[in-house]
Amino acid sequence: MTRVVGVIGGGQLARMMTPPAINLGLEIYVLAKESYESAKIAVTALGDHTDAQAVLTFAQGCDVVTFDHEHVPQSVLADLVAAGVNVHPKPEALLFAQDKLLMRKRLSELGVPIPGWAQVTTAEQIDNFIAEYGGRAVVKTPRGGYDGKGVRVVTTAAEVADWLDALESGEALLVEEFVSFNRELAQMIARRPSGDVELWPVVETVQANGVCAEVIAPAPASAGKVADMAAHIATTIAHGLDVTGVFAVEMFETTDDRILVNEVAMRPHNSGHWSQDGSLTSQFEQHLRAVLDLPLGSSAMVADWAVMSNILGGPSSGDLDTATAQTLGEYPEAKLHLYGKTPRPGRKIGHVNVIGDDLDRAVAAARGATAFFQD
Amino acid sequence: MTRVVGVIGGGQLARMMTPPAINLGLEIYVLAKESYESAKIAVTALGDHTDAQAVLTFAQGCDVVTFDHEHVPQSVLADLVAAGVNVHPKPEALLFAQDKLLMRKRLSELGVPIPGWAQVTTAEQIDNFIAEYGGRAVVKTPRGGYDGKGVRVVTTAAEVADWLDALESGEALLVEEFVSFNRELAQMIARRPSGDVELWPVVETVQANGVCAEVIAPAPASAGKVADMAAHIATTIAHGLDVTGVFAVEMFETTDDRILVNEVAMRPHNSGHWSQDGSLTSQFEQHLRAVLDLPLGSSAMVADWAVMSNILGGPSSGDLDTATAQTLGEYPEAKLHLYGKTPRPGRKIGHVNVIGDDLDRAVAAARGATAFFQD
Repeated sequence: MTRVVGVIGGGQLARMMTPPAINLGLEIYVLAKESYESAKIAVTALGDHTDAQAVLTFAQGCDVVTFDHEHVPQSVLADLVAAGVNVHPKPEALLFAQDKLLMRKRLSELGVPIPGWAQVTTAEQIDNFIAEYGGRAVVKTPRGGYDGKGVRVVTTAAEVADWLDALESGEALLVEEFVSFNRELAQMIARRPSGDVELWPVVETVQANGVCAEVIAPAPASAGKVADMAAHIATTIAHGLDVTGVFAVEMFETTDDRILVNEVAMRPHNSGHWSQDGSLTSQFEQHLRAVLDLPLGSSAMVADWAVMSNILGGPSSGDLDTATAQTLGEYPEAKLHLYGKTPRPGRKIGHVNVIGDDLDRAVAAARGATAFFQD
Repeated sequence: MTRVVGVIGGGQLARMMTPPAINLGLEIYVLAKESYESAKIAVTALGDHTDAQAVLTFAQGCDVVTFDHEHVPQSVLADLVAAGVNVHPKPEALLFAQDKLLMRKRLSELGVPIPGWAQVTTAEQIDNFIAEYGGRAVVKTPRGGYDGKGVRVVTTAAEVADWLDALESGEALLVEEFVSFNRELAQMIARRPSGDVELWPVVETVQANGVCAEVIAPAPASAGKVADMAAHIATTIAHGLDVTGVFAVEMFETTDDRILVNEVAMRPHNSGHWSQDGSLTSQFEQHLRAVLDLPLGSSAMVADWAVMSNILGGPSSGDLDTATAQTLGEYPEAKLHLYGKTPRPGRKIGHVNVIGDDLDRAVAAARGATAFFQD
């Protein structure tokens, strides 16, 4: 009996789970909205992730169901569980990733260090929070945000008047301390249903325009306290929220020397893409192993450094074939990962990983190798 | 325009070309006899590789056509070329891999060191050859042999009387010097149509019962003359036979200190599987790059040593799921590659790669990690 992993959603994360599924002798089935999505080679069914019947029909052929994204509604997940489908991460865990307010409450309960925050429904509450926290704050919609969407840095509640107006009964906004940070970090971790965890080294993530641009593994000068703190936080969240599979904890290293959790993404994540070429076990292989409750692989690095640089569609949304040939020709050591997506300006269409024993050279090569795609 | 690579044959080599095709943003189409073959995830058409019409129809959707095996008849290949299909390796090169006699003649012309050989059609010729070469020789059928099939070590022509009887007009057998060797080596090499070549380190291959059991990269104590000779031989063959794509040159290191070519496999090869985890560019990625005439990747190793151990079906043809869980649990550093095949005793169903800076430990782990499958 070959094990079958079902993935809801046909994006690049499902696509990148496919190579390790092939290696491990697994079957991978993907439910996508359209046959031409990024994970097309593994698509076995078409349907929307909000369509309970489509999801249930898909799931019944799978030994475990997991996700390309965090957007499957709780009602659909509940139907799966009621039908006896093995779902990882579990709906109870995913709920925290789907609702930033619930996440903040739970992280506070667990004693995980996070920025100051409040649940608010009125302009007065927001303005009071801003006054308390030095004249500036971050307002977030609890649901649906990613890559900078649903997040605003404000100095007055008037800047989110539209969000306040749109609140329905029972809804609220999240307001958070504006954190001055030296850099952003991310800790990738895997956890099996049986409880074992495996951590990769903490990484530094560099954002540009609210989107991850570059990741350096391990985060420079992180050995010791920073790495220990990041690992402790991620492990606490893994067990405290009963997360299964691979997930990412995004953190700030603040100017006043604190490590604070920013977001938790409950799935393989851009900040772990470096592991495809820089670790003995990639985050995608580890995720498959974790959700199947198979033993986790070693997350040891295969080089001193790994650098990931994202490829965003450029203004000319150019010719991928030409850019590919140029990149491969100029950077024979670079590992190219394209997502099979049509380029549009600013759209993530791939990334490059470079490993090596010289960080500056690896960074230069990773950046150089993405440049041909971004003209 | 996404580039489309077509692969004729749905075996494990086509399967293992799929992950790098996904990474590089290529489309991979596979023509297989049955939908359940090893490369099933990439199968886009069903048909026999000897069916000219099926092959031609398949090929017309591809930017380049390449192979999972060397068995596509020349007549079918000629039809492809006549129809303007871009085929790599080219039929003229494949012909040498399909006919051991033609290969020996060409290698002799190129001055490549090979065991003494003769083309024979009679028992007398074979017995004369045996007498000349010390009382023992190797007789091979020029076509169709692999993994020890079509090869016999003999002391008298009577031992191949059945092959002689079966010879039709114009056919012949190959008789070769029986070589006393210390070990077997293999040199993997890639060549683009435009002529560039890239070599991996020469490896040591360990055979058991005529089948490759283990590969060590690089071959121990090969730095210097052995590596230089192996690289020179493979490069000479690449250019001399106008081979394109990745191919393997299997060699003997003889007891009298010669390096002699044994066989040339004109495709990715078992002796290069270690590169999936031990080299910056795997043989499967390199093959795709080569047949598309894209720049070749770096073949640098990512560790001091890489060891590949094959998984053969054991006597109980056991439960793959259980063996997988045991292997992953006991050897978290091992990289498992299963081919999606039903185990049968002696059938190659996968392999394990282990990399590291200690050869003995890597060998022990690679062997240990395969053992659970072979009980």
